[in-house]
Amino acid sequence: MTQIFDNPADFADEALDGFVAANRGYVARVDGGVVRSTEVPAGQVALVVGGGSGHYPAFAGLVGPGLATASACGNMFASPAAGQVYRVAKVANAGGGVLLSYGNYAGDVLHFGQAQLRLNAEGIETRTVLVTDDIASAPLDQIEKRRGIAGDLTVFKIAGAAAEAGLNLDDVERLAIRTNYRTRSLGVAFDGCTLPGAEAPLFSVPPGHMSLGLGIHGEPGISDHPMPTASELADLLVSKLLADKPDDAGTRVVAIVNGLGTVKYDELFLLYGKIEKLLTAAGLTVVEPECGELVTSLDMSGLSLTLLWLDEELEQYWAAPADTPAFRKGNLASRARRELAGPEAEEAADVERPTPAAAALGRLAVELLGQVRDVVVEHEEELGRLDAIAGDGDHGIGMRRGVDAAVAAARQAAANDGGASVARILTVAGEAWSERAGGTSGALWGSAVIAAGLALGNRDSYSGEDAAAAVTAFTDAITALGKAEPGDKTMVDALLPFRDAFLTAFDAGTPVAASLAAAAASATAAADRTAELRPLKGRARPLAEKSLGHPDPGAVSFALIATRISAHISPTGTRLVNPEPAEQGAQA
Amino acid sequence: MTQIFDNPADFADEALDGFVAANRGYVARVDGGVVRSTEVPAGQVALVVGGGSGHYPAFAGLVGPGLATASACGNMFASPAAGQVYRVAKVANAGGGVLLSYGNYAGDVLHFGQAQLRLNAEGIETRTVLVTDDIASAPLDQIEKRRGIAGDLTVFKIAGAAAEAGLNLDDVERLAIRTNYRTRSLGVAFDGCTLPGAEAPLFSVPPGHMSLGLGIHGEPGISDHPMPTASELADLLVSKLLADKPDDAGTRVVAIVNGLGTVKYDELFLLYGKIEKLLTAAGLTVVEPECGELVTSLDMSGLSLTLLWLDEELEQYWAAPADTPAFRKGNLASRARRELAGPEAEEAADVERPTPAAAALGRLAVELLGQVRDVVVEHEEELGRLDAIAGDGDHGIGMRRGVDAAVAAARQAAANDGGASVARILTVAGEAWSERAGGTSGALWGSAVIAAGLALGNRDSYSGEDAAAAVTAFTDAITALGKAEPGDKTMVDALLPFRDAFLTAFDAGTPVAASLAAAAASATAAADRTAELRPLKGRARPLAEKSLGHPDPGAVSFALIATRISAHISPTGTRLVNPEPAEQGAQA
Repeated sequence: MTQIFDNPADFADEALDGFVAANRGYVARVDGGVVRSTEVPAGQVALVVGGGSGHYPAFAGLVGPGLATASACGNMFASPAAGQVYRVAKVANAGGGVLLSYGNYAGDVLHFGQAQLRLNAEGIETRTVLVTDDIASAPLDQIEKRRGIAGDLTVFKIAGAAAEAGLNLDDVERLAIRTNYRTRSLGVAFDGCTLPGAEAPLFSVPPGHMSLGLGIHGEPGISDHPMPTASELADLLVSKLLADKPDDAGTRVVAIVNGLGTVKYDELFLLYGKIEKLLTAAGLTVVEPECGELVTSLDMSGLSLTLLWLDEELEQYWAAPADTPAFRKGNLASRARRELAGPEAEEAADVERPTPAAAALGRLAVELLGQVRDVVVEHEEELGRLDAIAGDGDHGIGMRRGVDAAVAAARQAAANDGGASVARILTVAGEAWSERAGGTSGALWGSAVIAAGLALGNRDSYSGEDAAAAVTAFTDAITALGKAEPGDKTMVDALLPFRDAFLTAFDAGTPVAASLAAAAASATAAADRTAELRPLKGRARPLAEKSLGHPDPGAVSFALIATRISAHISPTGTRLVNPEPAEQGAQA
Repeated sequence: MTQIFDNPADFADEALDGFVAANRGYVARVDGGVVRSTEVPAGQVALVVGGGSGHYPAFAGLVGPGLATASACGNMFASPAAGQVYRVAKVANAGGGVLLSYGNYAGDVLHFGQAQLRLNAEGIETRTVLVTDDIASAPLDQIEKRRGIAGDLTVFKIAGAAAEAGLNLDDVERLAIRTNYRTRSLGVAFDGCTLPGAEAPLFSVPPGHMSLGLGIHGEPGISDHPMPTASELADLLVSKLLADKPDDAGTRVVAIVNGLGTVKYDELFLLYGKIEKLLTAAGLTVVEPECGELVTSLDMSGLSLTLLWLDEELEQYWAAPADTPAFRKGNLASRARRELAGPEAEEAADVERPTPAAAALGRLAVELLGQVRDVVVEHEEELGRLDAIAGDGDHGIGMRRGVDAAVAAARQAAANDGGASVARILTVAGEAWSERAGGTSGALWGSAVIAAGLALGNRDSYSGEDAAAAVTAFTDAITALGKAEPGDKTMVDALLPFRDAFLTAFDAGTPVAASLAAAAASATAAADRTAELRPLKGRARPLAEKSLGHPDPGAVSFALIATRISAHISPTGTRLVNPEPAEQGAQA
């Protein structure tokens, strides 16, 4: 739907006024269109482009140094009238003659042609180069009958750069003709566009289908297809264009993936990635590609691929700077490329060299994570049901996803040559948990596991103080990031009693394993007590009343995990803490 | 619909790969996002932005010199995980510390916060500035709870420019905080967006309605409204933002009209034009505005207005150059502004000074155009019916629209002080005809009338040769522009017999009026004979058979007009040609 307007009849005119207001540094409004608002060097060839409105950035958005000198702007999808073209070209003329260039449509040919007659009659030497890049609109042996679509950009860009470089009208015309001759496009449409004020789209494509070669105003295409995958679409477009390539094509091409309106950037980039691979596989080198919305049709759902086979001269002008409202190239001073180490190198730089003793402790951490996974799996459904009472019911599945990923990552790290320290195990586990679980609880758990790991570090043994530091770091990470207060009915309502009970017991001289058991019991009791609380954070307040009488699932899962770890630590306590007699003193 | 993909689960990842492939000069892929592929000067503050994917150009499209150093890129509409942010920031860090900046959403706060803890723990000094520009999401006294939307751009741009200028982390952070504090946005939505692979939109707005302040992922807004006009919408957005302005606002503002996906460029420009007028009326000066798609939500139908109240320091960094895949400023050497005469001045320069005799002939030309109008009006319905047999039925209405406009323009030109010559009368009439009639026949008639006018020129009298030259120029304009051949069943099938009959008679010494009568008779007979032809140009070939037995409406209207002019010329012949005895000799 095109729907932002006061009166549909004024749409094109008011849109052009607004465009000029937003781009005064580039363009000025004249009767019939826009011209550059900056000086054009005397004697420079004036490149005057244009056509109907509704194709932004074509055509007004392409006016500026290194590209068009002016644009004649018609009504929506309608050619500018001859008088408009004539007047715009007269203002644009800087004494070097005028090149008119536009897509090959009957109305435009008529009106621009009429303007050319008048300009020549008045002694302003004027030539015309039609853009005829759309291979769907006529066979190759009738190339002069083809329509112009996104190939506008290659022809305008190279002609504009040639004019900017000071070439004369003969040479600018010659390069524009050659660029057009070496440019091919093919588009697809998934749905039509709606003119301002219209009740229905100008045309439509059946849902789930794609029309190949449908013109940008609904002109007939080649064939209809069920909606393809991106890979199939890339293959279709590339193979059709390559089959239509010019005689002396060469191997260097510009590729332009152009969105027509509502096929958005991520989709265009995804497709471009696949297209580039196919072109490379076909032995071509892609030079300075473009991927975006360059020649549109209001809110049409569709896209096109354009290829321009370069030669040395064309490549020079394609790469030249340009500065227009919608197309800018060669900004700032160019900078040296940076040598970036790949992700593998980054990874390698992180790799530690744990001692055998540290690696043994790392394996113990993996074992503990496996216990955490087991308890989560056992209670996954129960946690989901609990969360569904006043939440979205995904706590069980989220915890499961997170801990599964954590265990897998931890096992992989431990399996490395030489193993991994506790710090490394918990860091990779926390990262994986955070990345795979999604949601708040995943991020909190991931962060807390990493914090505990960093507190423990890469060591051959840990003291009781180290354990206390890990408990504290785990707790701090969650309170710092989650920002929940006690009583908010969150995991924090079990976590803080856990930490307090642990530190109290440990400070009183209780061994780590026994302190942990006391803390787990405290967490379980606290989790049960959250049934009395109304949630103030982490879920929708309208459901607060429903939640009364049921404990918080985040507090419950924490208590379950704490209890399982405590139970597993008890028999292995001497393995985890103070495995070497020399460290005994620190435990007191 | 977001529909270009192979597997929806791979969408964000493959889109990012394609983005990097299309922009290798700017960005390189690293685990978790993208970083600049060009050198970052040692010691420069690294601005690391990011968030969920689906908001292009936010966030990866804003990476480059003068703007962001890197972007952490999450899944669709989902925060990047802490590990991703951490790894991207580590690569981005150039020794000057890291500024994390992103929109204020719970998931992002968690994950970027976790990354910040890790970076600081590793000795990479890291700060955070949240963007909180969306005034719909919380009242002004709780500004820290507001969401971030298109205000991302102002905060990132100014922080990036400050980093580029070599400011240290304290100063870059200070400027980012101040920019955020002085930035306000408000958005509207007309319809939702569809995640890749989803069957239905993520949210929707009732047809014909607009939701004010609806968040970019469907978060609740302030209120629902019937679809407003563009002027009403501009007024609503401007008044709400001005009511929320910062304390020490000043009078210089950046205005950003941002499209969210399917509200297209012409609509955004149209709205911008109205917004700028309102801001100016409120005593504000708009500085270097932006109007386009800057922070999107896939194919969401909606837009937002952002205002940044500048101070001197912020203006300097807003105006500074930037060069990223999607945002470029300060390209090329700046050029002097050109002094363009307004349309009025252009118009004035065209004004001729006809003699009283030339002006009298001009009035006669107006009278003849009036006759042409009369005959078209009399036959408008008949021409429409004739055209409907095998065409779109608009020939009558198109001719009427063209000739009405031609007569109005001619009368206005004749009414100017001192009147207008035949050349001027026919030029303005032809231009108006061409511009208002639309379609091929309007362009041909307009062009032919202008050509006849230019052939006749601004003179005090015309010879028979002048009349012959006008007939020839009229005919040539139509054959040159229309490119129809005899037998194609077009106006040309009446026009060429008309010209031939006129020239044959005139060359044989027949006076102009009689030659014209012979020519009109010939045209009428020829128009009748087009009933025997099949159309080959100008209408759909599948309907060719239906057209057999009926004359071509374009040939008929030409013959009718020729006949009426001839009839009117006969009694006035001595007024039009050879009004002065001295010219008699030329008529022989």
